[in-house]
Amino acid sequence: MPKDHINKAICAGSFDPPSWGHINILQRTLNIVDHLIIAIGVNNAKDCTFTVEERIKLLQDVFKDEPRIEIDSFSGLLINYAEKKDVKTLIRGIRTMGDYEYEFQMALTNRKLNPNIDTIFMVTEGKYSYLSSSIVKQVASLGGSVHKMVPPNVEKALMAKLKN
Amino acid sequence: MPKDHINKAICAGSFDPPSWGHINILQRTLNIVDHLIIAIGVNNAKDCTFTVEERIKLLQDVFKDEPRIEIDSFSGLLINYAEKKDVKTLIRGIRTMGDYEYEFQMALTNRKLNPNIDTIFMVTEGKYSYLSSSIVKQVASLGGSVHKMVPPNVEKALMAKLKN
Amino acid sequence: MPKDHINKAICAGSFDPPSWGHINILQRTLNIVDHLIIAIGVNNAKDCTFTVEERIKLLQDVFKDEPRIEIDSFSGLLINYAEKKDVKTLIRGIRTMGDYEYEFQMALTNRKLNPNIDTIFMVTEGKYSYLSSSIVKQVASLGGSVHKMVPPNVEKALMAKLKN
Amino acid sequence: MPKDHINKAICAGSFDPPSWGHINILQRTLNIVDHLIIAIGVNNAKDCTFTVEERIKLLQDVFKDEPRIEIDSFSGLLINYAEKKDVKTLIRGIRTMGDYEYEFQMALTNRKLNPNIDTIFMVTEGKYSYLSSSIVKQVASLGGSVHKMVPPNVEKALMAKLKN
Amino acid sequence: MPKDHINKAICAGSFDPPSWGHINILQRTLNIVDHLIIAIGVNNAKDCTFTVEERIKLLQDVFKDEPRIEIDSFSGLLINYAEKKDVKTLIRGIRTMGDYEYEFQMALTNRKLNPNIDTIFMVTEGKYSYLSSSIVKQVASLGGSVHKMVPPNVEKALMAKLKN
Amino acid sequence: MPKDHINKAICAGSFDPPSWGHINILQRTLNIVDHLIIAIGVNNAKDCTFTVEERIKLLQDVFKDEPRIEIDSFSGLLINYAEKKDVKTLIRGIRTMGDYEYEFQMALTNRKLNPNIDTIFMVTEGKYSYLSSSIVKQVASLGGSVHKMVPPNVEKALMAKLKN
Repeated sequence: MPKDHINKAICAGSFDPPSWGHINILQRTLNIVDHLIIAIGVNNAKDCTFTVEERIKLLQDVFKDEPRIEIDSFSGLLINYAEKKDVKTLIRGIRTMGDYEYEFQMALTNRKLNPNIDTIFMVTEGKYSYLSSSIVKQVASLGGSVHKMVPPNVEKALMAKLKN
Repeated sequence: MPKDHINKAICAGSFDPPSWGHINILQRTLNIVDHLIIAIGVNNAKDCTFTVEERIKLLQDVFKDEPRIEIDSFSGLLINYAEKKDVKTLIRGIRTMGDYEYEFQMALTNRKLNPNIDTIFMVTEGKYSYLSSSIVKQVASLGGSVHKMVPPNVEKALMAKLKN
Repeated sequence: MPKDHINKAICAGSFDPPSWGHINILQRTLNIVDHLIIAIGVNNAKDCTFTVEERIKLLQDVFKDEPRIEIDSFSGLLINYAEKKDVKTLIRGIRTMGDYEYEFQMALTNRKLNPNIDTIFMVTEGKYSYLSSSIVKQVASLGGSVHKMVPPNVEKALMAKLKN
Repeated sequence: MPKDHINKAICAGSFDPPSWGHINILQRTLNIVDHLIIAIGVNNAKDCTFTVEERIKLLQDVFKDEPRIEIDSFSGLLINYAEKKDVKTLIRGIRTMGDYEYEFQMALTNRKLNPNIDTIFMVTEGKYSYLSSSIVKQVASLGGSVHKMVPPNVEKALMAKLKN
Repeated sequence: MPKDHINKAICAGSFDPPSWGHINILQRTLNIVDHLIIAIGVNNAKDCTFTVEERIKLLQDVFKDEPRIEIDSFSGLLINYAEKKDVKTLIRGIRTMGDYEYEFQMALTNRKLNPNIDTIFMVTEGKYSYLSSSIVKQVASLGGSVHKMVPPNVEKALMAKLKN
Repeated sequence: MPKDHINKAICAGSFDPPSWGHINILQRTLNIVDHLIIAIGVNNAKDCTFTVEERIKLLQDVFKDEPRIEIDSFSGLLINYAEKKDVKTLIRGIRTMGDYEYEFQMALTNRKLNPNIDTIFMVTEGKYSYLSSSIVKQVASLGGSVHKMVPPNVEKALMAKLKN
């Protein structure tokens, strides 16, 4: 008895920029859901390296052959965005225990705001466990190579951004 | 474009006995998957209070009105059982950081054994975060009431078991 | 042989704004001590939403029927404030492991500064474990409802503040 | 307005054997409460080095000049023992994050069993953070000196016990 | 000014059996020290799969081309063994936070017993972070393949052991 | 067979200002290596209390009788600095679990950038576990005494700095 509705999920984040760690989680999510929305949170308080439009473009390039992935941005509460998109499942990748504490708090807060929406977690694979967007930017800004950390289009964009 | 296959998952555990914490995770899982197999691991090394048959019966009573839940037992590697059942998704509930460390290790081990099978995690709700099967058994064995911790049929079975 | 002195404690914090999580800890503290001082730390470096006077007023409203609670503010070292108030016991609520690390460090630092003053901890109840002042402000600023997170007078004040 | 009742607390544990880490916590507790009951839990499942009677005797020797400390043993649920003794406050020392997880779980379980009884925590001082009864017994059993870890009477008792 | 003495270290453990995780740490240690003693602790209380002699043989096979590695066993306190061997440095690999807590406690205990002997830690690489001797044995005993987890000689020995 | 090369290590950090905790780790490191470079990272983004030159001077005063310690500063990636200095070993002191998470991530990142350079960790002794440069500055800025936390020359420099 297959479900009659499409099984959709949202993976929200900053993706500033997307790394191989993110991409690994996003690809594995496609094994579980029919349709995945990658949603970039527009947070004015946060000082980002790439604009929302640039990040959407970077992710579109990475996933250009994957019709089941939709890339979008949202402002306001993630829960409200999920309601608008009629999505009941949020996906989060976890790298470390520190990640887990914060994610746990957000998952419980979101359940308080709407108990019909639930968060599921996937563990980042060991080889990517050290990788975060801020590590990528820190290494690049100090002149190190990030070609093992991000896809080629992201590396190129990051190099261009740092030259300015 | 709904998926043409049934979205199945396995939630394996000892369930010795099942608590409200387990049941909360299992019910929330039904929002994500079409079919959920609750699989009791037959581990000869572990000294259990209830037999596998008793635990299957307790879970069948709890979920008697839920046709999308199947209750089973398995021996050997969980990954082999998942392959036999043609399931690609394992579900785990996490209560605490200590839980998380162990679960993280098992998830990575299972991916090493079969990279096509993935584990997803859900966070136990705050009000059940203290609850584990061993807490339930410890409280009951010391004469405390467990009626807020387990469903009535489990409480009754536990009381009967402790009288012997 | 009851002690001949009043058993006093200080619970210091930002309370920007106070949440049900804070209030739960503060009320439980009254079971242990005779007199509780809620002390708002005046920290110029920290960017707060409510002024110290507004936070004092919010807490006074919440605890208006509790004569054993005194609400005050302090600047400088908490240890010096405790000495001035002749208090030997500091109270802290802990929600998460991350909290605990920081609190542990502060408790040991305070013992180094004055070994006669000690810190005791209480665990935030499971249902409030996700709640922090920054979660409250984040949810409210993104247009979410905080009525399960803070008392009515705090919700009202927060709504008014966000309109400006 | 001092409280008209005696402010009592229970610190329960195995104390197999008591170490300087335990004693440090117990002495600091006397700054907060009028009367402290040190309660040795009689747990048949646990394999202890010293009998309950021996542990009571060791603690009585250590605290022989402290009239506000009472040393006792109990079986069954700690909450029931606390009710019988008319005590509303349980005290626990915490050394490490691992300790904290378990203690957090027990504190929440006890609140579930009786919401009028609360647990407060104190942080073991840095210099004792490595010390546990099992470390003491492990070091002694392998021929190491424990004279910095336990009081002289406990060291003597441990040496005598290991000779048998 | 090179040091006039040989820079020696001990890496103690159960190695029951040695895994690629152990071997990775041991090989990296050779970049820091001149001579490394792998010391198998003889602990009667612990129920091991391989005898001490078998584990020494397995490690000798793995490191047969490495003259700077010595394989030995010891009983009693590691600190006493280090003193006998005239070694001032102990090496430990850390995989997880849980590991770290225990290792931290043992390092501080050993410093208490002999402040001239110090412990240094190395982080297990991400790809081996899930690997422990008990995971290896658990997978093998349930019929899973461990050929990515241990060297060929260990895999062979483990298969032979499990047949008995 | 002593190694024919000098055993060198780098301990990089902000040291803003150096505390007894730092000094304890640095002195213990000299038991393991022949030559230790204390390298102050020049990070424009970080708002420091002391200039790099002032911090170099403070460390030179503290270690003026230790010819095996070299004090330097670097900008850019630590890995590039280590390559330039022909050093294969990085040393880090760890105080808390939170420290450990971040350090673990940096150690794995550095191994990704240059697998020939490795990081080793030492545990800060219990009595210094609460001490960080930010605690020192926080206490001093609030008018507390830091004479148990830093050497006399650092205390004097901090007092002078805070007067301005």
